[in-house]
Amino acid sequence: MSRLLNDVVGELSKLPGIGRRTALRLAMHLLKMDEASVHDMTSSIDRFRDNIRYCSRCNNLSDEEICPICADPSRDRSTVCVVEQVADLMSIENTHQYRGLYHVLGGVISPMQGIAPSDLKIDMLVDNVARGGIREVILAISTSVEGETTLFYIKNRLRRFPDVKVTTIARGIGFGDELEYVDELTITHALLNRREIE
Amino acid sequence: MSRLLNDVVGELSKLPGIGRRTALRLAMHLLKMDEASVHDMTSSIDRFRDNIRYCSRCNNLSDEEICPICADPSRDRSTVCVVEQVADLMSIENTHQYRGLYHVLGGVISPMQGIAPSDLKIDMLVDNVARGGIREVILAISTSVEGETTLFYIKNRLRRFPDVKVTTIARGIGFGDELEYVDELTITHALLNRREIE
Repeated sequence: MSRLLNDVVGELSKLPGIGRRTALRLAMHLLKMDEASVHDMTSSIDRFRDNIRYCSRCNNLSDEEICPICADPSRDRSTVCVVEQVADLMSIENTHQYRGLYHVLGGVISPMQGIAPSDLKIDMLVDNVARGGIREVILAISTSVEGETTLFYIKNRLRRFPDVKVTTIARGIGFGDELEYVDELTITHALLNRREIE
Repeated sequence: MSRLLNDVVGELSKLPGIGRRTALRLAMHLLKMDEASVHDMTSSIDRFRDNIRYCSRCNNLSDEEICPICADPSRDRSTVCVVEQVADLMSIENTHQYRGLYHVLGGVISPMQGIAPSDLKIDMLVDNVARGGIREVILAISTSVEGETTLFYIKNRLRRFPDVKVTTIARGIGFGDELEYVDELTITHALLNRREIE
């Protein structure tokens, strides 16, 4: 086998979810792309890895010390939405419905995986709240056992700020979800939190 | 959103089977890798795209003008196994059972997709056979309609070499396949080509 092909397949298959077969398919696709396009891709990867930073206020990925969201003067600085990871922030941004700031934890507390509160950006969040001006902290954290643990941990850490409201996003039946396939816990929550039709 | 992140997600999602969500997950993984490993990966991609060649005898991917298989003096030069693509060649090589040469067509004849015989390396195969020394051509081509068309086209082109045997790989029930899920055509072939137990 060609050493060049072997190298590229080996390197690509180090990526998550990419086995040797997929890596080979990707390598074949690289041959269909012109050389300039391949170089554009590889240099964007290198530039990303070498220059990306974490926002010093919210831990979002950023090109500068402060991310575009924290730097945007039109955002509502009294509300902070806490998410596990950047992908969650992006999902919320894609709705174009939220105008507050974010705080990216970098994961959830998980004794099983050895992730302690100190491994997450929780102190940074508490410091931001202590600085004043924040009136509501929305915890948009997953409903897993780890997520719930993290939620209650943060709620506790924020108890010393009685003027700051700590909320969590609504749990319920998703649009398009079929009731028969929704788990019991979600249905229970959705029933308990039922709303009168106006 | 960070421009660096946006760029890398945009570039990665140009690859087949990689949507924006997967691209984002890959980008996050790049941050977990150290910078040197990321550079190893991107430079292996660039080196592959810039320097890979096609073997001038068999059309296999190669670092040199002649691929390692064609250049290997221990291979049986009287047998040529014709495959659609490099991935097929690699699957056969992985069995360590075949010691002949290969010929990579680069696809199959497909009027629907506008792939004519002249778009494939069939002339190159016929030229190789005309040069002499080849006693058997094994057609290891898929059983699709396009594959069968290609098989009969090549068989016809090789009719002018009466001393060259043209064979095809056996069709039958794969090891581990459950009969109830195997298609009728395969079962029919497997029945017609039944063998006496020795």
